[in-house]
Amino acid sequence: MCHGTIKNVPLDRKPKIALLTGDPSGIGPEITAKLLALRETRTAADVILIGALDPPESIPRGRVSREAGAYTLGQLREGVAMLQAGTADAMVFAPLNKQAMKLAGMPFSDELHLFASLLGFGGPVSEINVMGNLWTSRVTSHVALREVASLITRERIHDAVHLLHHALRASGAAVPRLAVAALNPHAGEGGTLGTEEIDTIGPALEELRGAGMEIAGPLPSDTLFLAAVRGDFDGVITMYHDQGQIALKLMGFNRGVTVAGGLPVVITTPAHGTAFDIVGKDKADVGPLREAFRIACRMAAARL
Amino acid sequence: MCHGTIKNVPLDRKPKIALLTGDPSGIGPEITAKLLALRETRTAADVILIGALDPPESIPRGRVSREAGAYTLGQLREGVAMLQAGTADAMVFAPLNKQAMKLAGMPFSDELHLFASLLGFGGPVSEINVMGNLWTSRVTSHVALREVASLITRERIHDAVHLLHHALRASGAAVPRLAVAALNPHAGEGGTLGTEEIDTIGPALEELRGAGMEIAGPLPSDTLFLAAVRGDFDGVITMYHDQGQIALKLMGFNRGVTVAGGLPVVITTPAHGTAFDIVGKDKADVGPLREAFRIACRMAAARL
Repeated sequence: MCHGTIKNVPLDRKPKIALLTGDPSGIGPEITAKLLALRETRTAADVILIGALDPPESIPRGRVSREAGAYTLGQLREGVAMLQAGTADAMVFAPLNKQAMKLAGMPFSDELHLFASLLGFGGPVSEINVMGNLWTSRVTSHVALREVASLITRERIHDAVHLLHHALRASGAAVPRLAVAALNPHAGEGGTLGTEEIDTIGPALEELRGAGMEIAGPLPSDTLFLAAVRGDFDGVITMYHDQGQIALKLMGFNRGVTVAGGLPVVITTPAHGTAFDIVGKDKADVGPLREAFRIACRMAAARL
Repeated sequence: MCHGTIKNVPLDRKPKIALLTGDPSGIGPEITAKLLALRETRTAADVILIGALDPPESIPRGRVSREAGAYTLGQLREGVAMLQAGTADAMVFAPLNKQAMKLAGMPFSDELHLFASLLGFGGPVSEINVMGNLWTSRVTSHVALREVASLITRERIHDAVHLLHHALRASGAAVPRLAVAALNPHAGEGGTLGTEEIDTIGPALEELRGAGMEIAGPLPSDTLFLAAVRGDFDGVITMYHDQGQIALKLMGFNRGVTVAGGLPVVITTPAHGTAFDIVGKDKADVGPLREAFRIACRMAAARL
């Protein structure tokens, strides 16, 4: 794997960030080069670059391929190994392509479970979506809607809340202001439109409040996000995938960041994809990768 | 019931609109007065005003009361009677308060079912939410999320699509561009995250396309609304309450309009509520009522 270290004048508590170029067929190498060209990048961290800024000849550009998937998997394995060895304090990766990685033999549904496997980590993990100052996690994720209600348990709610609470504290929020979405329309309207709010979600949140968390809910999900947009909360926990994703995507999550939640290491990535259609056209925006890098630096610095 | 007719120079095909002041304790009378003060209102229709522009002494302002509910119910009964008698071509009502109407003895969950009962109409009805140029209806509404999946049937999908298609055509769209949301995250991802898209929704939409409808879907609900915001569709049909409401509220539905869908008559109302907190302060915006009136005129004119 091609990589180099871009060392700066040593400063106390300057984090070492493993920066991965991601899928070489996509815009990852371009935006990584743009990020490295920013003075703030070199000021904020010691960057360890993993992956080439120019795609190797053997790999096609602008499309899915097994070769690109294998190349990406190599980067991810190397980055995680550095986190484990302590030679990197955090890892940031430019967009990858799950399909390419599966063609190259990745046996997991997504990279988060690959990371957990590489780290030998068995606890609950979940992606955290960050959009501006709003961080979100969810109690259930890639399951059929038919299964959602029966998966809403006190334990899963606690896991999702703790995971987001921990990440927000790691990013610098001393007492995160959290809100939890209801499962049912109108938050169940007193039990007439579903009882999960009364039976499960409400009591689970009471316990968390008793443990000192600042946490609102269960709130009707259609008005919850209006309050979140106003800045009323640092973190929102939803009950199922689309409940959060409908809102986040309308809020512009394509410019957001995904944080690997639950893992004992710091890993971030921009929320957007490989954007095969604009590869090599100098149209790719470095903004989301820059934000992913900024968050990783902040979370890593807090651990130094 | 206090009312008067504001007649204009007769024009061919000018609709007669019953305009109701709504809950007298809220901002309804104020915004009705503002609407009547606009020249365009008198140009577009012959307006039959139902309800007083100044609340009767016996009714408290700025709060829920049985008296206000009874007064509102009286307006609604009178308006519907005019629609039935053909003395009005459409009805527009300023915001009402369901709780007040229930205190006054309304035995229905909402006004839509009151209208159906008054009209002796037994077919499927559903509110249609209109936000700008986007019209939306839903297959299920006020039910627990746990029940949603088993309520997604070919018949209910057809009902919801036909209801929206009919309303859009009535409002002037010759061939409405429709989109139907998937039930499951990622539209079920080929059956791995739920099979309703393959078993039920997909085949139901094929039948509708075979009958000549222009209809996309089932589409993942989180990206569907990004396309809707871009203007790709005239109408969106969602599978459950929050799937549509999360998006609509973020899009500013508090400024939108609700159309009574399914009924054999035209009834519209602004989506916002009675806004008790700003009653009498001259802060209430006539915009959404004006839009409800505009839509009613267009739908009524198409029937003349």
